[in-house]
Amino acid sequence: MNKSVILRSRPEGAASLENFAIEDRPVPQPADGEILVRQRYFSVDPYLRGRMNDVKSYTTPFKIGEPLGSDGIGEVMESRHGDFKPGDWVMAAMPWQEVCSVTVGQSLPIYFRRIDPDDLPPTYHLGLLGMPGQTAWTGLKGLGQPKEGETVFVSAASGAVGSTVGQIAKQLGCRIAGCAGSDAKVAYLLDELGFDAAFNYKTEPDLSAAVRRCCPDGVDVNYENVGGPVMDAVYDNMNFFSRMIVCGLISRYQAAGPQAGPPMMPVLVKRIRIQGFICSDYPELCGEWLEVGSQWVRDGKLTYRESIKEGIDGAPEAMLDVLAGRNFGKQIVRV
Amino acid sequence: MNKSVILRSRPEGAASLENFAIEDRPVPQPADGEILVRQRYFSVDPYLRGRMNDVKSYTTPFKIGEPLGSDGIGEVMESRHGDFKPGDWVMAAMPWQEVCSVTVGQSLPIYFRRIDPDDLPPTYHLGLLGMPGQTAWTGLKGLGQPKEGETVFVSAASGAVGSTVGQIAKQLGCRIAGCAGSDAKVAYLLDELGFDAAFNYKTEPDLSAAVRRCCPDGVDVNYENVGGPVMDAVYDNMNFFSRMIVCGLISRYQAAGPQAGPPMMPVLVKRIRIQGFICSDYPELCGEWLEVGSQWVRDGKLTYRESIKEGIDGAPEAMLDVLAGRNFGKQIVRV
Repeated sequence: MNKSVILRSRPEGAASLENFAIEDRPVPQPADGEILVRQRYFSVDPYLRGRMNDVKSYTTPFKIGEPLGSDGIGEVMESRHGDFKPGDWVMAAMPWQEVCSVTVGQSLPIYFRRIDPDDLPPTYHLGLLGMPGQTAWTGLKGLGQPKEGETVFVSAASGAVGSTVGQIAKQLGCRIAGCAGSDAKVAYLLDELGFDAAFNYKTEPDLSAAVRRCCPDGVDVNYENVGGPVMDAVYDNMNFFSRMIVCGLISRYQAAGPQAGPPMMPVLVKRIRIQGFICSDYPELCGEWLEVGSQWVRDGKLTYRESIKEGIDGAPEAMLDVLAGRNFGKQIVRV
Repeated sequence: MNKSVILRSRPEGAASLENFAIEDRPVPQPADGEILVRQRYFSVDPYLRGRMNDVKSYTTPFKIGEPLGSDGIGEVMESRHGDFKPGDWVMAAMPWQEVCSVTVGQSLPIYFRRIDPDDLPPTYHLGLLGMPGQTAWTGLKGLGQPKEGETVFVSAASGAVGSTVGQIAKQLGCRIAGCAGSDAKVAYLLDELGFDAAFNYKTEPDLSAAVRRCCPDGVDVNYENVGGPVMDAVYDNMNFFSRMIVCGLISRYQAAGPQAGPPMMPVLVKRIRIQGFICSDYPELCGEWLEVGSQWVRDGKLTYRESIKEGIDGAPEAMLDVLAGRNFGKQIVRV
């Protein structure tokens, strides 16, 4: 018996619990070169919503009747690869199942790696040091290229990516401002993550004025996770030669039809650069973050918060929470 | 007496002849370090429309009651600088006047340089080898970075910038497609400039389908000069990892209010880069084009077409022609 989270149907618009099913599936038999992993935690990420649609984007869609999947961590139960033995810990792309068979060595370290549970908390490999953290580093350091003293704005700032972006920006000597969806999250940004300014986008009457208040010298790098009115408000305040790094557009993932983007005249006049990316486009930067971020954690330079859903049965609800912003910190599931 | 083209009033919406005046002004007295230049030709460029507004963008606004200005070429009449003597030819930023006093050596070679009228046709320094040509090279080679075999699309393709972009793209081994506003211009693109495909945007019923027909493998670099529906049609056909280089948005220069831009989801999913620029941001690339482009002209590799307005009195009409797309080839005025 191997409890699994199955895509029962594709959502039309907002996803609901009806789109998921919890089913028992057979325990896989590892082939040569594979390891059987008892999954302990897996990651719940906004981008997974796109994979619930039947649209090829940068990742393949989940199949109806099959498990969803994401990055997970767990212990090796059985090994048919010489580099691993039972009891080793790994981070790998795995289906949302209790037990998974994983091929060793066929992908980049950003997708599969051995982890040392005695060095750093293992779940950090799903967030701060995993894909979200690598995404933060790649987009901000690699593409946003903020100079010391410049202003960085990040939306969804208390989330797994946003909170890392903010702390990296501080380490790079930038002014950092951001927004989040509750007063508690805003307090967390200001009091625990060291943000210079922040606001609650749900209660601000004038988002553009709020960005201006938080960024009196304008915005040099907008690290965009949300899209829609928040993005438009930041765009109003972009500086000459500023960069808008499009990491995510969570406000659009469940919306119907295309939504117009920002006007292009400011791109021309202010020479703004707009750049979309996913972290796996830049494996070297991802690897760099593994080194840098791990050391910063050991040095106590980074704060990290997780939202842990207990039990694999709770994964569908965790997914809906992430899409609605009800999580507070990196959402993971304890299997 | 020094005939001058004066900004009489600022246009509201579309510019008209009423916004200009032809007046006599005193002949300037050159100070130490200056040269007095008899202007022979000057350039009429779309971006000048922005300078007729009272809005600081990347260039300062023209002042009411003062001459407009642009790049011009002419002969030194009187020199108060050791490097120049009467009879020398220069290219410089000059007011729209018959005789101008110009300071030597205070700006980059892209703004001021000696020219040899026996080497290349002097007027080429206003177009193919001047700011428009430098803009083409900087935006395409420097920012668009097309690889051999990739597809480049350029709007306003028969214009001073577009025609140079197209020919550079061919020299770089790209497929080049574009659009223009008359069948004669389209024939020029295909028969004389070597475009692989082109269409008349004024007569195509479905612009997106027209771009798809002309770019069966999609668009890797969109060199954008126009904005509006033409840009949207190209955007529909952008490839993964494509670049949209925003050089100009002539369809917006006389429009009221901001216009929404392209949706951001394709930026994210396809990792599109959108980048605005002006050539003077990249003086090294501008200098590179002076070398490369001049040699290509000597080698007979480039075709160039000018639209010459006779007489300084015709400058206002030439400006309106450019804004309406009535010119065919680089618009200049013979003083």
